[in-house]
Amino acid sequence: MRRWITALALLPMMAAAEPITLERFGSFHVGGREVVVSGQPVREVLFSPGGVPARVDPNGTYLVGSMYAQFMVPRPLRGAAPLLMWHGGGLSGVSWETTPDGRDGWQHFFLRRGWHVVVSDAVERGRAGWTQIPEQTGGTALTLTVDNPWERFRIGAGTGSFARGEVLPGNQFPTDRESYMNFMRQVVPRFTTTDDMTLAAYIALLERTGPSVVMAHSQAGLFAWRAAQARPDLVRALVLVEPAAVGDAAQVAALRNVPVLLVYGDYIAQDARWPTIRANGVRFGEAVRAAGGHVDVVDLPERGIRGNSHMIMMDRNSDEVAEVIQQWLGARGLWR
Amino acid sequence: MRRWITALALLPMMAAAEPITLERFGSFHVGGREVVVSGQPVREVLFSPGGVPARVDPNGTYLVGSMYAQFMVPRPLRGAAPLLMWHGGGLSGVSWETTPDGRDGWQHFFLRRGWHVVVSDAVERGRAGWTQIPEQTGGTALTLTVDNPWERFRIGAGTGSFARGEVLPGNQFPTDRESYMNFMRQVVPRFTTTDDMTLAAYIALLERTGPSVVMAHSQAGLFAWRAAQARPDLVRALVLVEPAAVGDAAQVAALRNVPVLLVYGDYIAQDARWPTIRANGVRFGEAVRAAGGHVDVVDLPERGIRGNSHMIMMDRNSDEVAEVIQQWLGARGLWR
Repeated sequence: MRRWITALALLPMMAAAEPITLERFGSFHVGGREVVVSGQPVREVLFSPGGVPARVDPNGTYLVGSMYAQFMVPRPLRGAAPLLMWHGGGLSGVSWETTPDGRDGWQHFFLRRGWHVVVSDAVERGRAGWTQIPEQTGGTALTLTVDNPWERFRIGAGTGSFARGEVLPGNQFPTDRESYMNFMRQVVPRFTTTDDMTLAAYIALLERTGPSVVMAHSQAGLFAWRAAQARPDLVRALVLVEPAAVGDAAQVAALRNVPVLLVYGDYIAQDARWPTIRANGVRFGEAVRAAGGHVDVVDLPERGIRGNSHMIMMDRNSDEVAEVIQQWLGARGLWR
Repeated sequence: MRRWITALALLPMMAAAEPITLERFGSFHVGGREVVVSGQPVREVLFSPGGVPARVDPNGTYLVGSMYAQFMVPRPLRGAAPLLMWHGGGLSGVSWETTPDGRDGWQHFFLRRGWHVVVSDAVERGRAGWTQIPEQTGGTALTLTVDNPWERFRIGAGTGSFARGEVLPGNQFPTDRESYMNFMRQVVPRFTTTDDMTLAAYIALLERTGPSVVMAHSQAGLFAWRAAQARPDLVRALVLVEPAAVGDAAQVAALRNVPVLLVYGDYIAQDARWPTIRANGVRFGEAVRAAGGHVDVVDLPERGIRGNSHMIMMDRNSDEVAEVIQQWLGARGLWR
């Protein structure tokens, strides 16, 4: 496994300015189910000022729990399977498209290396839409204040660090005010009770794309582990970037033929929550390995890659980390 | 004006299967403002099952009212300015990306003709995110039942037509069940009281892109008229596809140097609301013309293009209508 790490320095970086040729690209929605609501009063709604009022009957059938995906297939194609990018909680597919300081995101990085990239918005977020039917969402969505990710995503050192303007020493997240606020613009509300709907939609996505590499960040680690356990035939590999949760301990054997890469950033030991979250992930990986699976754990600081926050794909050294993942995928025979 | 219509039949259609070369592409957020909330209780939130609970303080500063945009710049570039595509109410930028029956959307059409295309999600929708801070949104968002657009967007003939499975004769909207449900998957909740925030964000978008052609559908007609009145220096032309509202009557002269195309579909005379909505739009256009502006009105059936619903960019003849717009833009000197 050392070999693909040391090869890193030898690869020339692609110039970001090069044009890219797409064999095809587009978007689609998948999944969801119908829910019937009854007994609610009819309303008259003026949709646009100066328009004509429309009668809106809230009773009837709603379609809830679908999700959105945008695919891009580059020419030449070198990835052995589609590369699905699943964003973290309170975020959307934008996480992969761009960095808050305006550099190309991992969508670009992997497209330029010939991967068919699929960037999606999970149920309830972004272009997936959401619903306020209480029995479907479990209630109120959570919106984050500007200080929350700064203090929770290992950008600053915990509570109060945003107000104090404190950044963890050597942090690679772009913390100038404009960049950080660009990141906050990407944040979307989050329901904490829609996991089952979301998992079902991700499985529907895999059924649509066919066998794929799943790259998942943070919250999506939960969905990636569990989707792979439910449909190991549809997952060629899991790349889990700081997964916030694990899979079903009773089904580790289902992952026997799904190689897994776990990637963790910096500042974990000193954080209030991340030592536990990381330990849970590593322990689950060990259980998968004990069941015959292949699990690699990369702690970036141990590889000399320092300063990574929880938002690794946005950090200033994001391309360096992407290259670690690219090399691992190549070593697994998924890139030619 | 007849000339660019008759030239239509002579243009070869581009093959959808051709690869496309992008000089560059990416996404960004713009606009928004900070809002302070105080006096709310602190909550403990378990973000992921098996994770570690986090303390969430809802008091503090929120960033609300920003919007999302994805840009693609093709090679070769032939449009004289960026072409911004502003979606209608209860929808997102997806409207322009794909049709519910899986054909290429107008984003593709105009990219392939060499336009720098910018597809955006307005405030509160899609990747723009949204907020539930009541004083910012004015309350509850509206989600549509599956029958609502069918009956309101001139797909079926008004109330009850969805249940009866009735389609207006010759309708070009893809009404097979799978396609229609794909369209419903694109529908997102809509607040009806966020117009000022949305207009401000669209103006911020124009400030970012520089002088642009604005193509707006339905609700976005409101924002397009008013953004052009506020910043005529940033709008090279308006293409309004069934605009649901008009601009400020006191400021028609501001549009003197902004050429405008109004496009309306079929079945309007027999609809309960659309005769009034269309008449308002045409009358506003006449006022702009009287103030020295250039306004063309295209009623598609009068040009022999029949069967168009309100969702013209999704109808089976969407490319034919796009070609009408493309020719008009060419005649205005905006394409070379």
